Amino acid sequence: MDERLKKLAYVFKPRSVAIVGGSPVPNKIGNVLMKNFIDGRFMGKIYAVNPKYTEVLGVPCYPRVTDIPKLVDCVIIATPAETVPGIIEDCGKKGAKGVIVLSGGFEEVNRNDLADRVKELSVQYKLPIIGPNCLGVFNPYTRVDSIFLPMYKLQRPGPGNIAFVTQSGAVGSTVVDLAAHYGMGISKFISYGNGTALNECDMLEFLEKDEETEIIILYLEGVKDGRRLLGWMKKVNVKKPIIAMKAGKYGKAMAAARSHTGNIAGNYMAYKAAFRQAKVTEADSLEELFDFVKIFDQPLPKGNRVAVITNGGGMGVLTADAINDQGMEIADYSEASKEALKKILPSYGSVGNPLDLVADAGVDAYEKAIAVMMADQNIDSLAIVVLTQTPPIDERIIGVLTQACDERKKPIVTISVGGEYTEAYKRALESKGVPSYGSPLAAVKALRRLSDYAMWKRKLK
Amino acid sequence: MDERLKKLAYVFKPRSVAIVGGSPVPNKIGNVLMKNFIDGRFMGKIYAVNPKYTEVLGVPCYPRVTDIPKLVDCVIIATPAETVPGIIEDCGKKGAKGVIVLSGGFEEVNRNDLADRVKELSVQYKLPIIGPNCLGVFNPYTRVDSIFLPMYKLQRPGPGNIAFVTQSGAVGSTVVDLAAHYGMGISKFISYGNGTALNECDMLEFLEKDEETEIIILYLEGVKDGRRLLGWMKKVNVKKPIIAMKAGKYGKAMAAARSHTGNIAGNYMAYKAAFRQAKVTEADSLEELFDFVKIFDQPLPKGNRVAVITNGGGMGVLTADAINDQGMEIADYSEASKEALKKILPSYGSVGNPLDLVADAGVDAYEKAIAVMMADQNIDSLAIVVLTQTPPIDERIIGVLTQACDERKKPIVTISVGGEYTEAYKRALESKGVPSYGSPLAAVKALRRLSDYAMWKRKLK
Repeated sequence: MDERLKKLAYVFKPRSVAIVGGSPVPNKIGNVLMKNFIDGRFMGKIYAVNPKYTEVLGVPCYPRVTDIPKLVDCVIIATPAETVPGIIEDCGKKGAKGVIVLSGGFEEVNRNDLADRVKELSVQYKLPIIGPNCLGVFNPYTRVDSIFLPMYKLQRPGPGNIAFVTQSGAVGSTVVDLAAHYGMGISKFISYGNGTALNECDMLEFLEKDEETEIIILYLEGVKDGRRLLGWMKKVNVKKPIIAMKAGKYGKAMAAARSHTGNIAGNYMAYKAAFRQAKVTEADSLEELFDFVKIFDQPLPKGNRVAVITNGGGMGVLTADAINDQGMEIADYSEASKEALKKILPSYGSVGNPLDLVADAGVDAYEKAIAVMMADQNIDSLAIVVLTQTPPIDERIIGVLTQACDERKKPIVTISVGGEYTEAYKRALESKGVPSYGSPLAAVKALRRLSDYAMWKRKLK
Repeated sequence: MDERLKKLAYVFKPRSVAIVGGSPVPNKIGNVLMKNFIDGRFMGKIYAVNPKYTEVLGVPCYPRVTDIPKLVDCVIIATPAETVPGIIEDCGKKGAKGVIVLSGGFEEVNRNDLADRVKELSVQYKLPIIGPNCLGVFNPYTRVDSIFLPMYKLQRPGPGNIAFVTQSGAVGSTVVDLAAHYGMGISKFISYGNGTALNECDMLEFLEKDEETEIIILYLEGVKDGRRLLGWMKKVNVKKPIIAMKAGKYGKAMAAARSHTGNIAGNYMAYKAAFRQAKVTEADSLEELFDFVKIFDQPLPKGNRVAVITNGGGMGVLTADAINDQGMEIADYSEASKEALKKILPSYGSVGNPLDLVADAGVDAYEKAIAVMMADQNIDSLAIVVLTQTPPIDERIIGVLTQACDERKKPIVTISVGGEYTEAYKRALESKGVPSYGSPLAAVKALRRLSDYAMWKRKLK
């Protein structure tokens, strides 16, 4: 492993951070950054670097990085591009462990001279550099947070096991915001922008060994070395499932991607082929990205046979449609299960798949049905529709679903559609690690991806 | 028009309502119904019908419908199936204008004898009957509300111009809840269940003339007379765009649909062909249903050329991808527009499509760019990405987007991705009639449907 990647851990868990461009002027990037570290309760020391001040928001401020009297692990730079190489040199001299360059104005505007200098300095000082032209990193475990967007506008997710690697800052930040909104936890957020010194391959290599990361989201616009990426995807995906999304797929969109991060977007078909070869799960939209990533925390299914439980007939029909659509199978229950399920249903009910518990069903009916299906060897996964709007469904359902998930016998997807009441319920589920979907199709699509990944893993053995 | 359809207007705007099965016992359907009418501020008189009481929740209660001393327009029945024909006879004798049968226990459990009797009575008394086995109707204008789910669990949408016709009650109710959550207004909600006396064709015929309805959502499981439905879809879709969704598409899902509302789900391919022939917009999921319906309130575009505005490069790339994906065109600006747009951008910006206003862009930049694009004859529609998380974007953007929509020159879709802050902003837009999407792909898919519909309408002329 590259010396720089070993040091990269300090960028995510620095004992001290210096913010170059730190400023008391409201709404300046250097000000938002300072506030995010202070308000976000960063666990280490904070320093500002700015020749104009001796103190910024109560934090000591120095003219240059080399003037800081104490140890500095991570330096965040938010000053004009021209000033960046000089500051990086200072970082090298100071013995910093890593640098995040948020500033734009490099490859993406054809200033390859500046970009080359950044690359050289990274090698010369064995200094991991993230960026330039990026949002940098966010680590909910240590509260390192170089996302220069105010917290009241952009929520930060809590700790979890999903790492999110993205070229685009804008897309990256919205995903961070959404993850927080859905109650999804992350291990690390890395927006690497132009990827001048370290790129997506380095991040995969780093995350492969990262103990807090179990699932990886990879959001790409263009890459410099497709062959190397394929290698790393193959290697890492076996251990930690990768969900990838490629932006800048076609003609004019490619041009837009190029002017965005200065990378060649390349032929989308080549990416698609690489994803397939590495058995990386590809998402075609931001919705799919979320839908897919949240199922990969579930146990791997043994096959494609899905059992559906519902308290609304129509939603059962839609789920069965989705199972067909996605090439999954509607499970046939064992005879023992049929007998057991019959006892759960009302007298006029009939045992089928979907199993329609009808609108009168309470939480107990769900609990019993889930127990039967978990024990049935003819069933590989469960899709559980809960219409929370019916009178007998109360919050105990969250406990039942959470427990079913925690037992980790078979993968579960839950489906609930509705307004505020339902949204609150879904967020409660998500925060307990129960994958919750707003539609049958989204849930079953995700199940399909998990099933494909599981099949591939079985074949590898 | 069938005499019964003329009377149907009274079901949506009754001067008085009788709730058969009205009850003071909490959580009973007859109790939830009473409460929904009382708490929902229904504008007419309310009566309960139940031999056990003389008063229910402060409302006068009578043993039979025929005992009510005053005029009764609409009767809602929530008593066991066996009792329903007798009560309908009473309704006929009483001169009621319409009946909603919520109770199940008819065709869907092979009690065709009871179903046939319902049908006969409807014809004999020229009485429009909605149901059985349904949620009935909700009209936000008059607050008629037979959805027997409590309001704290299932929100009701405000008044609008979208009618929602559904067989399934469960799916229907979740859609009502979602519509309310998104701030979408509806004209009428009709869950017609088994469609024994009146079915989807009758509803289309009725809605064609309904002044409050301009867009129709049609959610089907199975229909009895496909040929008649095709005829009505063709006729109505020309005047009022229909967004249709078919559930119970395949093998086992069809069986589930059958036991659900007692209708034969039929060959999905036949439905698909019928939708195509009638140029009805088909949604493949509940997400699409919402995504599509909200764009049909926009002016029809003259062609497929889309201009994209964004304050986040990566989201612009995704939008361009979606435009390619959906077979739309990335517009080439006129020379005059290019000149004008250059002045809006910062010095380092470049005029492209997507137009990247960059993260520093304020609301003024959006306002100016929109004005230029509205005047450009090379542009047919606008996709406007707003990352609300950037510091310069404040709530004035809502006014700018609303005004652009209100001018009704070209269709607009807006795209914003994010957590709570963004969600609040999106709901504000929706409530003002600005279509707002959570992803570029969803927005462009909808634009494509509107464009297809517009092209078909142009050809008809």
